[in-house]
Amino acid sequence: MKALADSTVAVVGLGLMGGSLALALQERRACARVFGIERDAETRALALDHGIPSTLELGAVTEADVIVLATPVRTILEQLPRVGETARAGTLVMDIGSTKREIVRAMNELPSHLDVIGGHPMCGKERAGFANACASMFANAVFVLTPLARTRPEIIAGCQSLVRAIGAEAQLLDAGRHDEIAATISHLPYAAAATLMLIASERARQDDLTFALAAGGFRDTSRVAASDVTMMVDILLTNREPVGSLMRAYAARLAAIAVMVEQGQGGELSRLLTAAMGQRRRLDTPGKPSHD
Amino acid sequence: MKALADSTVAVVGLGLMGGSLALALQERRACARVFGIERDAETRALALDHGIPSTLELGAVTEADVIVLATPVRTILEQLPRVGETARAGTLVMDIGSTKREIVRAMNELPSHLDVIGGHPMCGKERAGFANACASMFANAVFVLTPLARTRPEIIAGCQSLVRAIGAEAQLLDAGRHDEIAATISHLPYAAAATLMLIASERARQDDLTFALAAGGFRDTSRVAASDVTMMVDILLTNREPVGSLMRAYAARLAAIAVMVEQGQGGELSRLLTAAMGQRRRLDTPGKPSHD
Repeated sequence: MKALADSTVAVVGLGLMGGSLALALQERRACARVFGIERDAETRALALDHGIPSTLELGAVTEADVIVLATPVRTILEQLPRVGETARAGTLVMDIGSTKREIVRAMNELPSHLDVIGGHPMCGKERAGFANACASMFANAVFVLTPLARTRPEIIAGCQSLVRAIGAEAQLLDAGRHDEIAATISHLPYAAAATLMLIASERARQDDLTFALAAGGFRDTSRVAASDVTMMVDILLTNREPVGSLMRAYAARLAAIAVMVEQGQGGELSRLLTAAMGQRRRLDTPGKPSHD
Repeated sequence: MKALADSTVAVVGLGLMGGSLALALQERRACARVFGIERDAETRALALDHGIPSTLELGAVTEADVIVLATPVRTILEQLPRVGETARAGTLVMDIGSTKREIVRAMNELPSHLDVIGGHPMCGKERAGFANACASMFANAVFVLTPLARTRPEIIAGCQSLVRAIGAEAQLLDAGRHDEIAATISHLPYAAAATLMLIASERARQDDLTFALAAGGFRDTSRVAASDVTMMVDILLTNREPVGSLMRAYAARLAAIAVMVEQGQGGELSRLLTAAMGQRRRLDTPGKPSHD
């Protein structure tokens, strides 16, 4: 692998995350050249305004030493075989999709003259698009790298440099383990927030003061429901088993708490909610384990 | 009712909300005198440091023209009869408890020589106690007032002045309607956040990287799980039917979405999640109705 400083990086998909990556690489002068591959003409114009040239053609990956796929997960799965046919021998193909198991499986099918690795920066925001991208997106974030059995050590080291270059902290992880953890800390909270919006909106149709009285607590709890739906549906559908099983466990637990409320079981309620409170407060206390 | 500017206000319970009310009245010189009634000696000392004198004795309510009960809801329900026996004729008894139906029912039992009204400022934060109180707590918040049939118009007007004096906006509401709305925008989100913490913590016991990878989305969605448990249990147990029924509806909806995920029903998932996204985004767009 060529040193990152001497490499040309192609970012496929200049949305929130791909756009942020291109901007971060550019601003930190981490590579020799960065360009985008983006189907939307308006986005290409906006990116150019911010110093990121781009093209419509996926075939332009032949110009790159490093190709980073930053489209929604099911689009990445479609693009990988096409990139595999086109990219020059010795090119590194990575991605920053939000689920990793299906992507590394598809990467494993690519020709052996290509290097491959999966990636997922654990950051983001709920407004999509290059307009919301920023070079500081990855600052202090954990950036998961999911090497395959075929991924060479020097490729892993090169990717760790790339991650450091944009201000993030690399965490090597098995793709399956990543997807289990992401289901817990990202996909389940999204499903919970979206469900809250659906239920609350039904009530708001019956009483138009409902949202007028909503304060910060409701806004925080529901915030991620505003996330980009194309991205989220791809995530849920490429992580079905972990997400489905967590959603079921969550629904069953909430229904059990509903029974405690209805039957006035104050002691049991208090015990459970005290556990939840302690767990949440420990999240904000750095250095203490959050799981006891 | 004496003009607020000439009144002595007793705040019973100098926690987050009672403490903030006392500080707000003091800072804005809204009344002639404000003092607290607080059982915890450390809190009394802390309040005094911030210019709020207080006493241990509930009997001190005889000195007040306006008594504001600011303890957890079930404590308010215990205190109301005692306040009713003690308070001077012509005293206004109000409260800032988080559920209103049971409280206005108990207020209705008070002697007819007392004026009564329920109240609930729609603001707060998840850290309890006077140490987290602040005079600006009510700035621009909606402050619900729930008059009883016996509440005289001049009392309502006086309370509206009090609400304006601390920077909030008064909203008159039937107690039952308040509790239905609060179940949707406050009690259900709390139950959802607490359940998320319980489920995520179970997973974190199986994989100790779980919380290390959690980013802003998880923190926001779970934030209100850190709320004071005594306060929350009182709220849930005095609003059982609306909260229980919402929690059941929510659990059923989430379980249905889990089936869509597991069966890969992308179209139906996309339709539902797009509705949730639109509803959440409208919450952040002032002036647009959020319920269509």
